[in-house]
Amino acid sequence: MTEKSRPEVRQERRVEVCFSPRQFDLYKDEFHTCVVIDVLRATSAICTGLAHGVDRIIPVPSVEEARALQAEGCIAAAERNGQIVEGFDFGNSPRTYMDGSLKGKTVALTTTNGTKAIDIARGMPQVAIGSINNLDAICTWLMQQPGHVLLLCSGWKDKFNLEDTVCAGAIADNLIDIARYRSVEDSTIAAKHLYTGMRGSVFSFLKASSHRRRLRNLNLGEDIKYCLTPNTVNIVPVLHDGALVDSRRIKDGVLMDAVD
Amino acid sequence: MTEKSRPEVRQERRVEVCFSPRQFDLYKDEFHTCVVIDVLRATSAICTGLAHGVDRIIPVPSVEEARALQAEGCIAAAERNGQIVEGFDFGNSPRTYMDGSLKGKTVALTTTNGTKAIDIARGMPQVAIGSINNLDAICTWLMQQPGHVLLLCSGWKDKFNLEDTVCAGAIADNLIDIARYRSVEDSTIAAKHLYTGMRGSVFSFLKASSHRRRLRNLNLGEDIKYCLTPNTVNIVPVLHDGALVDSRRIKDGVLMDAVD
Repeated sequence: MTEKSRPEVRQERRVEVCFSPRQFDLYKDEFHTCVVIDVLRATSAICTGLAHGVDRIIPVPSVEEARALQAEGCIAAAERNGQIVEGFDFGNSPRTYMDGSLKGKTVALTTTNGTKAIDIARGMPQVAIGSINNLDAICTWLMQQPGHVLLLCSGWKDKFNLEDTVCAGAIADNLIDIARYRSVEDSTIAAKHLYTGMRGSVFSFLKASSHRRRLRNLNLGEDIKYCLTPNTVNIVPVLHDGALVDSRRIKDGVLMDAVD
Repeated sequence: MTEKSRPEVRQERRVEVCFSPRQFDLYKDEFHTCVVIDVLRATSAICTGLAHGVDRIIPVPSVEEARALQAEGCIAAAERNGQIVEGFDFGNSPRTYMDGSLKGKTVALTTTNGTKAIDIARGMPQVAIGSINNLDAICTWLMQQPGHVLLLCSGWKDKFNLEDTVCAGAIADNLIDIARYRSVEDSTIAAKHLYTGMRGSVFSFLKASSHRRRLRNLNLGEDIKYCLTPNTVNIVPVLHDGALVDSRRIKDGVLMDAVD
């Protein structure tokens, strides 16, 4: 066994939290896996979509790119400022994916914050998708991966937001407590503190969050309730050849047929 | 009395927290007063210096500018990465100013984070300096000012840091509780939560902070203890004609002689 593959090396893995895509370049070095988080609602929708049988989700940063893929016959979803963009059938509601009608399909997706964050993380060796909906799954999967983990909060238009940070704090807390990851950044301490401060009552803690207010005004109460519910799905989306797929389909770097 | 000058209007004043100079442009609009915070140690040193009789402190972003002012005969202080820059007599230790030897003097100051943040805030209608050392003074002063308040954390090289955020959270909490300021940003909710979580034990809460570790390694334990002590001084430094002066010296926009 080489020095590198010894299990003890795992104790030295780091986990850190980056509050916004705008800060990403300050944090990104040395990390192997970047987990993109956009609880309300892009990464919750991505996790839910792949768990409900969508074949691949292609995240694109701009509405124009989504429109171009739509013109090529791709199913396309586009959200800006919490609402479905004109000319698209879907936005980023997780409920879009729940009735099974998109099973086996490829969907192109663009959202205000989440797909922009995924685009920024694209250069990392490994990109995965986290949400409150796949909390246990993402933690378990991360512990099986080598290297340091950066939790990238999508935020709201480059600003800090509470729900992404609390989700990142929950993941960091798990990795540190269970798998002895270490962290040195103040942002990670703060995210953990915000999470432990509201453990058991995510919903009431987040009632004041600015984006929740924004969505409530758009009558998206059911979406919010769903997105803040832990472990509704048991999968981890990963970026592979520009598309998000269920991580269980990747074997030795190759995408296999859909898992049933 | 015009609509604008009615006391009730004050109830609508906002206070928000910006975690880093890198985020400043996302927050700055609509705010009248920007309070720059760099607890370890620039703004603590500035408050302490003016309270101990320094006439003016000229904040400059670069070491070169500090050197130029030094060449013109100005007393100059420069800190980078927690240490005094070669060729300068002082860095950003508050203790520099405590023995009275700089009474009545003008000091040029450049530091890793704090003076950079002051430079970024320069275009705001009013710039003041906050720290844990002048916590009550800055809160009382702010409540006497018109307009919205932006609390700008200097952070560490554009990253989030804990001690500046907790100080901002303390100021925001006071303005909201006592003077009914409102806030809408998630960063403000988080800062308040981090502050109330550690109320009464700032020192132990911050023991894990990355910058505290950094300074402890440089044997700056006494500085840290001082900077985390509330209300050691009772003044508010404000930016006037490019220099920081005791706010009590400004009458109708004109700088008066030093206060005894």
